[in-house]
Amino acid sequence: MFHKILIANRGEIAVRIIRACRNMGIRSVAVYSKEDKNSLHVQLADQRVCIGEGPARNNYLNMERIITAARNVGADAIHPGFGFLSENADFVRLCDEYGITFIGPTADVINSMGNKSHARKTMMDANVPVVPGTKEPVYDAETGEKFADEIGYPVMIKASSGGGGKGMRVAKSKDEFEFNFNMAQRESANSFGDDTMYIEKFIENPRHVEIQIMADNFGNVVALGERDCSVQRNHQKLIEESPSPAITEKMRASMNHDAILAAKAVNYTNAGTVEFIVDPKGTYYFMEMNTRIQVEHGVTEMVTGTDLIIEQIRVAMGEPLSFTQKDVTPRGHAIECRINAEIPEKNFMPSPGVVKHLHLPSGNGVRVDTALYTGYRIPSEYDSMIAKVIVHAPNRDAALQKMRSALDEMVIMGVETNLDFQYRILKNPEFCEGKADTGFIERILRLD
Amino acid sequence: MFHKILIANRGEIAVRIIRACRNMGIRSVAVYSKEDKNSLHVQLADQRVCIGEGPARNNYLNMERIITAARNVGADAIHPGFGFLSENADFVRLCDEYGITFIGPTADVINSMGNKSHARKTMMDANVPVVPGTKEPVYDAETGEKFADEIGYPVMIKASSGGGGKGMRVAKSKDEFEFNFNMAQRESANSFGDDTMYIEKFIENPRHVEIQIMADNFGNVVALGERDCSVQRNHQKLIEESPSPAITEKMRASMNHDAILAAKAVNYTNAGTVEFIVDPKGTYYFMEMNTRIQVEHGVTEMVTGTDLIIEQIRVAMGEPLSFTQKDVTPRGHAIECRINAEIPEKNFMPSPGVVKHLHLPSGNGVRVDTALYTGYRIPSEYDSMIAKVIVHAPNRDAALQKMRSALDEMVIMGVETNLDFQYRILKNPEFCEGKADTGFIERILRLD
Repeated sequence: MFHKILIANRGEIAVRIIRACRNMGIRSVAVYSKEDKNSLHVQLADQRVCIGEGPARNNYLNMERIITAARNVGADAIHPGFGFLSENADFVRLCDEYGITFIGPTADVINSMGNKSHARKTMMDANVPVVPGTKEPVYDAETGEKFADEIGYPVMIKASSGGGGKGMRVAKSKDEFEFNFNMAQRESANSFGDDTMYIEKFIENPRHVEIQIMADNFGNVVALGERDCSVQRNHQKLIEESPSPAITEKMRASMNHDAILAAKAVNYTNAGTVEFIVDPKGTYYFMEMNTRIQVEHGVTEMVTGTDLIIEQIRVAMGEPLSFTQKDVTPRGHAIECRINAEIPEKNFMPSPGVVKHLHLPSGNGVRVDTALYTGYRIPSEYDSMIAKVIVHAPNRDAALQKMRSALDEMVIMGVETNLDFQYRILKNPEFCEGKADTGFIERILRLD
Repeated sequence: MFHKILIANRGEIAVRIIRACRNMGIRSVAVYSKEDKNSLHVQLADQRVCIGEGPARNNYLNMERIITAARNVGADAIHPGFGFLSENADFVRLCDEYGITFIGPTADVINSMGNKSHARKTMMDANVPVVPGTKEPVYDAETGEKFADEIGYPVMIKASSGGGGKGMRVAKSKDEFEFNFNMAQRESANSFGDDTMYIEKFIENPRHVEIQIMADNFGNVVALGERDCSVQRNHQKLIEESPSPAITEKMRASMNHDAILAAKAVNYTNAGTVEFIVDPKGTYYFMEMNTRIQVEHGVTEMVTGTDLIIEQIRVAMGEPLSFTQKDVTPRGHAIECRINAEIPEKNFMPSPGVVKHLHLPSGNGVRVDTALYTGYRIPSEYDSMIAKVIVHAPNRDAALQKMRSALDEMVIMGVETNLDFQYRILKNPEFCEGKADTGFIERILRLD
């Protein structure tokens, strides 16, 4: 049993984790930068430690300071939230070294899933479908091109250590290959110190559908169904929902099954997400596994009636999962809209500042995860996401209408937000018909 | 299809109904007293009409003003909420007369359930168990005493037109009967202009367990399970939960069945609640039927995933129920705490005033129905209930812990509230073990 958990994060996810600790009777410790001293997570936690000022590398990304804080307050465990140190195997090893439980999978699992070509190989061995591509690492353009000729263009050239779109290039035809391979490889060498590449068939504008899994230390792995996260701008998700309007019951069962295979293949523990891309014909492929809780986990909580953060903590304490596969009976439809302090008209430029007036929607099936309050100053140092509005209703149409009502009611004065932009998506016929793929946002922005 | 609904109520239930209208794309009209001009329901509605000032009889209870407002704005329908005119058959007839749909059952049904001895007789005829008692009205002490001797003491002497505890007396033994009968009858004659009495077996400190039903105009009646409302002070509910810790699966099925029988016996339409008392042996008896939505309806919504206000509006528009009996699959455990602006230490005296600072709990499975905001002045003219905190979790213990966390987090500054008193109940072993009956609050207050 943990007595005290340090939350190595900020904003709404830190608040979310503090609430889970309260629900379990566990004391919570907030860490914060000087800029965040008036933040809600600092106010709500049972204890608080300032760990620096300025950009995240001086505080929320600073492993030593966080470990020191944890040791000083006598925390049994650290919850990393998402982003920051949540997928940093070195941080997990540091926790291990000091006898502090990291609430998440092991360092080895994080590592093996972090290396994309390694993860790809593991999935192939486990019979999880991956996008057709190279089985072995590629180090030169010539070898790569030979392979690309075999599977046919367009192809995607990817850095093995890549992430965030870096070291990634599409070759639409043979004559584009060499140039793009070299560009991507150079980028990868510069960014990640690694020139290992691989080549995949390029699937244009797929749907992004991911499966939430939870695994304990006793070999139990449960799949909690899918989230459709196709509405993205620059690989940043904007809207997530469950169930996905793009998949059939048969696909759902098969994807849940494969996600469990994927988790079992690496002896996965704690919360994780297996991300798939789905092509227009309904064929799906493993894309990557996120070895942490995700921003959009609330969508799954709403349809399954579970609490994934509490479950993470339970598993980290060595308890078995509180539910079995047959207990997971999704009900209704949930949608999440991410609310960012940004100016869509100015290329989504962040818009920090003071929240002068705030009114949050509420009521039956409406959940707002946020750290906002009236008078709060949104700092410019960190991510621009300031709230997640999540709704739950008996079906997709009712959920869409509920989300429109919720955003209609929401008032955030003092900073600009993407509320109107989200509302516009919620009124878009393509999205409303459940047909938005990952190219959707780019298409509607091109119309402006 | 309604285009515009007038909400003949105030506070959180008016906000709740406005949100349901938004979800359905129906325009909402708030009515308000001068004291309520800055209230949230007035701000959130699409349109607003001031209907007077001062006590409720000048505004929220004033039928003519409400009907006039509805006609002036061109409302198709009126939602009465609870309290005020929600169970007033004359008001329903007035609506009918002016071609405005009253969102609730018919005037005749309201009447027949409002008369307690008539309702009792109807239930006996329908084979719904009632507390053993007189089948025919009693007008004099002698006849009543003869009957009391038959069923045995203690007995309850009740006014047929009674309500709110008026015209109600317990006779613990034969020598108390005549005096108490005469007292109760006189009170009834004075309060209700009716000296019709009836006698029932008195069941001491029962559990209060009620069944939510929904019925459409096509003869479909669905039972949505029970709410346990045993935690009461002076017949005012303080905490409600579902499922009830006091009943078995077999009792639940039987009570759901009997609630449907009760509704069908009077051709019931729209939302209603069949209230039962349950004695320590687990025998249950019909107590009364509430012919309106209830304060605690959110508890049922959380466990069943339904929206009872939307369902009420649908039914009133002539649509069939959106669910069948087999669609109702309760999940987890929900608890509601009513938060009142009152001073428990001063005999729960109301404590109106300005809310200087407000922080509401939120997150996974936490719902707060309220019309509060920072700076809001709680008027002294109306009910002291200012918020309903509702939580949902996989089981009762988790729900209790979540409610404690939620109340812990809740901050209401500027007025005194019963938050601490509620917290105390949530920590009480008798309540935590699910053993609180309707005498519970009195017992813990006696200890003070």
